[in-house]
This record gives sequence, C-alpha cells and structure tokens, in this order.
Amino acid sequence: MAKVIMGKVRSNTQGDGRATLGTYLFDCLKKEGVTEVFGVPGDYNFTLFDTLQQCEGIKAVPTRNELNGGYAADGYARVKGLAALITTFGVGELSAANAIAGAYSENIPIIHIVGSPKSEKQKQHKFMHHTLMDGDYDAFRRVFEPISAYTAVLTPSNAMAEIPKAISIAKRTKKPVYLSVALDLVQQPLSTKVPKLEQAKTSESSLRSASKQARKMLKPAKQVVLLSDAKVKSWGWESLVREVAEKMQIPAASTTMGKGGFDESHPNHIGMYGGAFGSKKVQEVVESADCLIVAGFVPSDVNLANETAQLNPKKMIIVQPESVTIGGQEYKDILGEDMLRELSALGLTAEPPIPAADRPYNSGTQLDGSHPLTAQEYYPLIQRLLQPGDIVIAETGTFAYGLSQTQLPQGATYIAQGGWQSIGYATPAALGACMAAPKRRVLLFTGDGSLQLTVQELSSMMEYGCKPIVFVLNNGGYTIEKYLNFRVPVEDQPYNEIPGWNYTKLVEAFGGNAHTEQVRTIGELARAFHDSELQRTDKLCLIEMIVPDDMDAPEYLKLMSDELEKQEKG
Amino acid sequence: MAKVIMGKVRSNTQGDGRATLGTYLFDCLKKEGVTEVFGVPGDYNFTLFDTLQQCEGIKAVPTRNELNGGYAADGYARVKGLAALITTFGVGELSAANAIAGAYSENIPIIHIVGSPKSEKQKQHKFMHHTLMDGDYDAFRRVFEPISAYTAVLTPSNAMAEIPKAISIAKRTKKPVYLSVALDLVQQPLSTKVPKLEQAKTSESSLRSASKQARKMLKPAKQVVLLSDAKVKSWGWESLVREVAEKMQIPAASTTMGKGGFDESHPNHIGMYGGAFGSKKVQEVVESADCLIVAGFVPSDVNLANETAQLNPKKMIIVQPESVTIGGQEYKDILGEDMLRELSALGLTAEPPIPAADRPYNSGTQLDGSHPLTAQEYYPLIQRLLQPGDIVIAETGTFAYGLSQTQLPQGATYIAQGGWQSIGYATPAALGACMAAPKRRVLLFTGDGSLQLTVQELSSMMEYGCKPIVFVLNNGGYTIEKYLNFRVPVEDQPYNEIPGWNYTKLVEAFGGNAHTEQVRTIGELARAFHDSELQRTDKLCLIEMIVPDDMDAPEYLKLMSDELEKQEKG
Repeated sequence: MAKVIMGKVRSNTQGDGRATLGTYLFDCLKKEGVTEVFGVPGDYNFTLFDTLQQCEGIKAVPTRNELNGGYAADGYARVKGLAALITTFGVGELSAANAIAGAYSENIPIIHIVGSPKSEKQKQHKFMHHTLMDGDYDAFRRVFEPISAYTAVLTPSNAMAEIPKAISIAKRTKKPVYLSVALDLVQQPLSTKVPKLEQAKTSESSLRSASKQARKMLKPAKQVVLLSDAKVKSWGWESLVREVAEKMQIPAASTTMGKGGFDESHPNHIGMYGGAFGSKKVQEVVESADCLIVAGFVPSDVNLANETAQLNPKKMIIVQPESVTIGGQEYKDILGEDMLRELSALGLTAEPPIPAADRPYNSGTQLDGSHPLTAQEYYPLIQRLLQPGDIVIAETGTFAYGLSQTQLPQGATYIAQGGWQSIGYATPAALGACMAAPKRRVLLFTGDGSLQLTVQELSSMMEYGCKPIVFVLNNGGYTIEKYLNFRVPVEDQPYNEIPGWNYTKLVEAFGGNAHTEQVRTIGELARAFHDSELQRTDKLCLIEMIVPDDMDAPEYLKLMSDELEKQEKG
Repeated sequence: MAKVIMGKVRSNTQGDGRATLGTYLFDCLKKEGVTEVFGVPGDYNFTLFDTLQQCEGIKAVPTRNELNGGYAADGYARVKGLAALITTFGVGELSAANAIAGAYSENIPIIHIVGSPKSEKQKQHKFMHHTLMDGDYDAFRRVFEPISAYTAVLTPSNAMAEIPKAISIAKRTKKPVYLSVALDLVQQPLSTKVPKLEQAKTSESSLRSASKQARKMLKPAKQVVLLSDAKVKSWGWESLVREVAEKMQIPAASTTMGKGGFDESHPNHIGMYGGAFGSKKVQEVVESADCLIVAGFVPSDVNLANETAQLNPKKMIIVQPESVTIGGQEYKDILGEDMLRELSALGLTAEPPIPAADRPYNSGTQLDGSHPLTAQEYYPLIQRLLQPGDIVIAETGTFAYGLSQTQLPQGATYIAQGGWQSIGYATPAALGACMAAPKRRVLLFTGDGSLQLTVQELSSMMEYGCKPIVFVLNNGGYTIEKYLNFRVPVEDQPYNEIPGWNYTKLVEAFGGNAHTEQVRTIGELARAFHDSELQRTDKLCLIEMIVPDDMDAPEYLKLMSDELEKQEKG
C-alpha cells in the first residue's frame, strides 16, 4: 500500500480549532466509516484534495479516470456500506455519470462531491474553462438530478444542514447524492449549526395491519418460500432474512440480482431462482409456493428471467425498504427491517421439510486436467476454489451468468451489477473492494471485452499494493453480445470483435508487481489458481483463461438467448 | 485498415425498396459527408449496428469505450464538419456524457444516436436492465438536455421530420444533438414525408444597420486588427477571415481557442494573442488597436488569459454566428458569414503596414543534440518539423499551452479542446482525425497523465491501421495541475502523481504494429521524428519524450500560474 496517500495525523479543523466546510465534510464521511475517498484531481477540486490531505484517518485514492473512480466507489460501498467520490466540474463529474446512474439503479450509496469554479466567477457568469461557455453554472447539477437521490450546492452557511441531509438521504435511499462546492469555499469556516434530521420510521398501525394480513396468508399456506432479492444486500438485511427462514423453518432461494444476500451455505438455502433458465427444481419450489415472501424485490427482466418467471402477486408478501405489499395490497410507512422482524416473531413454522438444494455446478467436472476450458467444466472448479470470506466480483458478460449459478461459501461477498450491467464495471470495482477490505481475498472475474473499457485500473491496483486474483476470460470479443444479438449470424457481427491484447505484457507495461499465467485447460487453471494463491501474498495475480470456443457459455445464457429469440419471433 | 467494418455494397433500403428508420438515418448522415460512425455495441443498439452493416458507403468504427467514442467523433467532426456516435441506453450513453458536453462547449456538431429498449417494454414501464429500475424511460434524455442543442425520441412516424431537424440544428448551432430510438423501431419502414425546414437567414435591414455602424467605426480608425477566435473554425469561416484581412490590409492574430482558424503562414498573420502570457508585441498591437474585429468570439478565461486581456468593447466589432455586436450594440439576425463578406466589401483599407509577426518559438534552439528535453528547446524543434497539411492534436496540459504558441504551416488543422479542456480527449480524437483524413499526417501530442485516462484507443488505432505519430511527454504526473495548484508545495500534492508506465510494452500489449522510441535529448527527438517519418508509412509511431525536470513547462504556463497566484492573493 506504499503509495496510497495517507492523511497526516492532525485534527481535521483549522488552526483556530474551527471546522471548515471541507474538514466538516470529511469528518462527516469518516463518522460513516468512509476512510478512503476515490477521485481524480482537477483545478476546481484542489482545495478538496488539499483538505483531505490534511485530514486524519481518511485519505484520497486517485483513480486513472473518473468513470473508474465512480465504479471503485461503488465496489467500496458494496463492502463498507457507503463511499465517496471527488470529481472536478464538468469534465470530471460528467465522466462519472454512468457509474453514478449505475449506483442509483443498483441502490448503492455514493457521496459524489464536485469541485466547481470560484464562487465569484460563478456569480458573474464568467466563461471559465470546463464550462459550457454560456455562463450557466447549474447545467451539470441538472444533468445529475435524474440520476441522484439529492443534489445540493454547498456554501459555508448551508453545509452543516446540507451535508448531513445528503448523507442521510444516501443512507436511507441507498442511492448516490450530488454535492458541489466552489473552489474557494472549501476552506472557509462554517457559520451555522446542525439542524435535527427527520429519520424514517415505521407506522405502528400500518405494521399491525400488514402483520395481520401476513398471518392470514401464511397460516393456511402449505409451502412458504423466502426469495431473497437485491435490496437485501443494499439495506443490510442479511441476518434478518436468515432469521425469517430459520424461525419459520422455510426454504430460501436467491434471485440473480440478490445473489449473496442469503448465506448460500445455510441449510435452508436451496439455490438460485432464475425462472426458466436456472435450476428446474428451485423453479418448481418457488413457483409452486402458496406463499412467497420476497425480501427487497426488484422485478427486473434479469430477476424475472425475461418474463419466464411465474410469480403470482396474490400469493406474495413483498418486503421493501419503506413499504410492504401483501397479495397486491400495499402497506406504506413500514421499514423493511421491522416487517422482517415481525415475520420472524409471528410464531408460525412450516411443516414440510426443506427441499434439497439444487446447484448446477455442484456436480460436473472430474477435473480431467487435459480438458480444454469450457463453462461446464470451469464453473464447478471455480466453485470448489472459493473460500469463506472471499469477495467475488463478477463482470457483466458470460461470467456474471455463470457465477450467479455457483454456490458461495459462508461470509462471501458477491459483487456484480445485476441490473445496470455496465461492462467495464468490475475491474475498478475490484480496486474499491480491495481498498474497503484490504485483508480479504478478492477474486475478480472479467472478460476480455469488458476489461478493455476500464483496464487502466489494473495499474492503480498495482500502484496501491492491491493483490486481487484477476481471471480474464479470453474468448475473443463480446461473447455475451453475440448471444444477445440472435438476429444475425455471428459472422455478420464484426462490431462484436475486439483487438487481441497480451495481458502479461499489459501488466508489465503498467509497471506493477504482478504474477501472470495463461491457461488453456482445467488442469492448468487449477494449478494457476494454486500458484496465485501463493503469489498473492505480495502481488496482484492475473490468470488469462483462453477458451477454444468463442461461443462457449454457461447453460443459463444459452437458454436465455433462445428464449429472447422465441419471444421476438412471437 | 484491415479490420474497420466495411458496409456492404447494397442499397440502404429494405428489400422492398422502402427506407426504414435506420437506413434513412444513415442515408441522412451520409449526405452530410459522415462516412464513419463511432460507437460501442450493446444489446439495445444491435439493430442500429446491423443496419449500418448493411449500408453502403458508411461504416461502423467501434471504440474501446463510449467516452473514447465520443472524443473520436469530436476529432472527426473537427476535420469533416460533422460526426455521429452510437451508444446503448443508460450504460453506454452516460459514459459519453463528458465528450458530448465538451462538444457542446467547443461548438462541435455530433449526432448522438442511442439505442433504447423495445418500445413495448418502455410503454409498459418494465424494469429492464440498463434502466434505473423505476420504469422511467425519459431519465437519460433529460440528463442530456442541458448538454445537447436538441433531443428527440425517434419513431417511424416522426423520423423524417426529427432526423433532418436534429441534423439541421447540429449544423446551425455546431453543437451535439441527441436522438434515441427503440431497438424494434430501427428496422421499421417510415410512414411520413419530410417537412420543409426553416433555414436561418440574415435580415437585410439588420445587416445594413450593422454595416453602416461598422463603417462609422472603421473609417477614422488608425489601426484596425482582426482577431480570429474559436467559432471561426466551427463555422468554417477560415477563408472569409483571411479575405477580410487581405481586403482591408490589416494584421490578424489568433486567440488560444481560435488557433488554426487563420492561416498562420499568411503574411498578415502576426501571431498568437494571449493577453499578458503570450507575445508582448502581439499584445501591444491587439490591445492598442482603435478598432478590433473579433470573429467567432468566445470570451473565456482561456482566451482572455485569465482577465489579463485588455480589450475595450467600445472599440470592438464582434462577428458571431447569428449576430454582430459593434461598440456594445447588438445587431440580431445576421449570419456571421454575411457580415464578414460585408466587411470585405466595404472598400476600406488600412494605411499602416502589417507589423512583423512575433512567434516565441521561431528562434530558440540551435539543435544542440545533447541538450536535454526542455520546453524552451523542443517547441522550436517541433515547429520546424511541422508540414503543410498536418493534423496537429494537442492534449490539454503543458502541450496545449506550448503548442498554442508555435507557428502552424499552411493547411494544417489544429485540434485541441481549448475551453473544455478534458484531459484524455486527445488520444481518441486522434483516432477520429485519422478516420476522417486517412491520407493526412496526424501528429498527436499528449502527456503521460492524460494518456492514462483513455489509453485503450491506441489499441483501436493500431487495429484499424491508423498511423499517427504519437508524442508522449513523460514528466511523471499531472505537471499542468501542479502549476495550477500554487496553494501548496508540489511535494504536498501526491494526488498529482501517477503510476509510471512502460509505453513500449504498452503498445506491444495492445497487440498492434507499432514503432516506439524513447528520447531524452533534442538530438534524439529530431532523430526519432525522422525515423518515425519513415516508419509511419506502415505503422503507428510512438515517441516517449522523457524530460529530466518534472516542472519544465512552456513560458506561457509559468506566467499564467504566477498570475493566478497573484489574483488569488489579492
């Protein structure tokens, strides 16, 4: 971690003991457990970086560009619960727009802090560099309005109200918020007191009604099933959903976007639910339940397996962060965690035994060392190599589909953009995860196509002493896209081809300390993993998996492609 | 150019001879001279790429990511006048936001085409992947509203109105426009006729008034000077401003953002105007003029040299694209080209002889071969190596400041983001320029810091057979930022340091055919340039310029840094 910029051991206030806007901001972040701030310096955010530099216990982690910084913050927040990003006006902040919108879509709270031109220049509507040259200093805040839960322009007189408010909104909605501050105001002393913030809370009467209705549906139900979805992870309900399953003695399955929210080593966990594409057995159990408790539901095309999911709203208890819907009837003003506790406390227990789990990659490979790399063979191997406490990062593409069907060990964190699916996300997110949990093993699974979008963050990881094991699936292009564009033959999709890169030379070019291996068979992959396990104590490891068949893919993706084609043809 | 995707030789219409939305769109672009379309494929824009693939005379040029695609389109438009970019909904389009805003700021017309989810899914507000998971399909169009001159959602029934309208607005305003189209509508036949578009035109009475007032100011003036600014290039007024200078027999200078708009080899061109930071002689001539004709004015901090420029509005004739301002009085509804023709036709000629040109890098180096690389030495050398017709691309950073002061040969095109100044722009812009003018010599001047943001486009250039000569100034970090943050000592700015890369290995890793050299002295630079000149007939050349002093910079930047510090302190 040699070159990470360490804050000096000083009090985060001015010499006279008073907080400035900047020290106050970073103190607020630190109180939330944010000890690393991602970003890229620029001449409108120097006072932010300089202030951060002076702050104790919180440090800057510059990334190679702002999109990557946003992704790194996202990955960090998925491990630590909250993240922060500093960008510069216009050129910097807009580069991060995709990452911010992704965090919005995926319910990941990021405090996005933008350094803007001096307040006097703004007031005078000067045509400064990095502006639209029309004197409009509000344009970029408006850009971020549709993709942020809150936006505010900070001043010394509103900072003590706006900063806590913005952080509170980010934590409540689990979405990014946008704060901009002029270069010259960051080091100004504050001038008002903190107003008291309203906290969201449960309406007791609403909870009583919901609880009564839930009991009515659960009591006569023969098979009750818990489905753990995406928001369980964002809202940190992991132990609450486990408790519901334990207390009610019911089976639990995870959705694709919810993967990792329910302990997959738990005896009540029966596997992944993926409509017509995933396990048939899990599909049968989930879809035949006469009461389905869905925690943190995101009814996306991904989770509903392109509308092949057969879920009956009349039989569902949907627990959301601030409401509950039972049999189609919505109960507002109920915090999800209170409803989950209520369900655990109902005293209802199911009679049927927990069905056996079904996991496609439990069986499979006999580890025939000479077998070329195919999805059918390497996913079972990867599943076996995972260890409790691992952070597993799956890039959008074939890896995300295949890894979603593996079984995670206890305490593992699974990071993927299940819904937003922006290719290129995973590599910078791995930097974020390494920073958030420097002692945990981080496994990054990315494809050659995706890696090309954000590759420079491999350099940052090496620069900052991060030691993930990076798996690069080299299948010569955007294989996922070839599956999704079933309309024309693959040979008529030259736009889905990419330049071939030499990954060993690449990490050398990035100047870092790394161990790389190229593998072509299952045996080589197992050996390379073993080697990397030894090497990763002091360096980043990269394993290039060269697959002989460009169109090799997990079964899940093949079924999905067939279904999409069927749907399009009517 | 082996792998650039060539359209097949077919008519751009459906089998039945009728145009589809997609074929019509690409036909419209082709009519404007757009024969290459940049972008990144994604599952919501496949029908756009597939249609493009079928079109004759126009082809797709995929880039490594969307920001780079946007920059490439910008570079292309600066050579060919108009460009197009295809992105996918959400994840793709938002990654290009910075490039689009940059084009808005810099007056570069780009047709940004976004492929969105199927229209039925949108109507039903389905939670599709790449959305915000809230059913809002208008959010991203709203994101682009503040940074686009026009936005529209295309359908088969509005396409024949909206596409020509959008292109017309892009051409008139020289700004990007945003068109989104659902995946399933691209290949639908069109269903309406083209409405007639209103063209902007000059009000004769307004022009007469302005002309009369201009004559009043010009007639008694002793020294009239033309200042050629940024919009001259965007609006293609190069020959018109030259004619004004010739007919009126007056000296012409260029602003920093306007560099390249006025032929710098012309006898009337006296050099670059840069307020207190540029040539003192040019400053004297411009600021003492009793009538200053400013063509295509952008009164930015860059052009006004951080308010050190002493320009008196009462003595100025400001010619803008659709208005003229004389001595502070605005005349609306006048096309700039009509006003410039009017000025040429006034029959007024200046008496004083054209002052001698002053160019800081005309003198300088004696080409002492062993002299280490310093700005004072290598800019004169670079100036000498430039040839007529070159495309010179200057990255934001020390290079942009230094190169702005060199003299360009006749017919050279100068590409830089003078005002937006987004670091990382230049490398993808070079790809765009190579595509726009495959027969011209393209010289890319970038810094190590900037290159890291968008480096993957070196790979695209090699993949597509582009052969620029790339100069990478290796000064170990963001030297420009160190000058701009005068508040703290350089050693307290660790965030302005970057990982050191090996550029030779980098181009090898990218798998391309390239010639690379590392140089440390003026003699080596001259030799490497000569070698590259020979090598570039069949490969990309990269010259890494290693400077011994990290803080070496052109005089212009040093003066600017001092001035900014002075302004901040009092």
